[in-house]
Amino acid sequence: MFISFEGIDGSGKSTQARRLADRLRGMGHGVVLTREPGGSPGAEEIRKLVLEGDPDRWSAETEILLFTAARRDHLERTIQPALEAGQIVICDRFADSTRMYQGISRGDLRGTVDALHELMIGRDPDLTVLIDMDPEKGLSRAKARQTAEERFEDFGLELQRRMRAGFLALAEEFAPRFAVIDGDAAPEVVAEAVFAAVEARLP
Amino acid sequence: MFISFEGIDGSGKSTQARRLADRLRGMGHGVVLTREPGGSPGAEEIRKLVLEGDPDRWSAETEILLFTAARRDHLERTIQPALEAGQIVICDRFADSTRMYQGISRGDLRGTVDALHELMIGRDPDLTVLIDMDPEKGLSRAKARQTAEERFEDFGLELQRRMRAGFLALAEEFAPRFAVIDGDAAPEVVAEAVFAAVEARLP
Repeated sequence: MFISFEGIDGSGKSTQARRLADRLRGMGHGVVLTREPGGSPGAEEIRKLVLEGDPDRWSAETEILLFTAARRDHLERTIQPALEAGQIVICDRFADSTRMYQGISRGDLRGTVDALHELMIGRDPDLTVLIDMDPEKGLSRAKARQTAEERFEDFGLELQRRMRAGFLALAEEFAPRFAVIDGDAAPEVVAEAVFAAVEARLP
Repeated sequence: MFISFEGIDGSGKSTQARRLADRLRGMGHGVVLTREPGGSPGAEEIRKLVLEGDPDRWSAETEILLFTAARRDHLERTIQPALEAGQIVICDRFADSTRMYQGISRGDLRGTVDALHELMIGRDPDLTVLIDMDPEKGLSRAKARQTAEERFEDFGLELQRRMRAGFLALAEEFAPRFAVIDGDAAPEVVAEAVFAAVEARLP
């Protein structure tokens, strides 16, 4: 089973991905917890190339190619081997983040993102957990732990609102594989809702 | 006018590209001489990522994505601006090298290479000069100046033979834009033949 977590910055998705991994491990499942961009040695090098340095050094098109290269490596070296070994893979962000961020910054590139995904990746998670979150709350949380890499977060509340709307639109577009979880509740409550969504789909 | 040079390693294409650039400059043309992989600051960084380190660290598919990302950056930042400014662009290797090397190493990926090229690059040179060369001679020249990057050259005479045949097949497939030049002659003679092919197509 391949599970991804998506959500705006500060939504708590990384925390929830970790909690889910711990709980599933506690039940005796083999779990690989990973993240994008990155998640394999090669993909982590590509991550650095994309996210560090001047934000304008890559065009949107080149950035999509680099993210797709990183995803391909991550899929080949980390995700597929784990799935083939019968493990549960939990991934903090996957292709929906590319669909979303490019859709926000360059709406006309969604077709390119989809064509590249079809050609070079060809698969989506079995379940995508969208942690839905009040954009103002998400922004203040994200700002509190901002790192050099998180340049997307610097774009303010208006962008956070559009990102939330973008993720909800994706959840509608790909409804069968999405579980939308209210992220405004206490972390324990969110974790319970996430687990219920996963448990319902465990083989 | 956008001119690329192709040929097996040791064919003398880089020397010939430089000679052509000098000659065209001497005639008063603005010339940008560039090379792939690389040719722009971002693409040079991607070049390092692909060519340095363990040759097995990228799959063929990821490598194609990285080369395409580098090519897109090179096209946007170096080639297109020069062409728009009315300069002649001379490029040591371009998309034909990707078609060729992937065609040799993984023939089943030629369709993927073509689809990616169509989607993300969308153009070929106006003229491609193929310096055709005896594989044995090419190999001994390439070995004499081998660098850490040139791992493709380590594959021996049989590979050089297949590469030569692969380039000649591409020249047939894309006949109108190819000029096949005999590279076994003295460099001055080769340079004259290259210049004649270019002159015939200068606006």
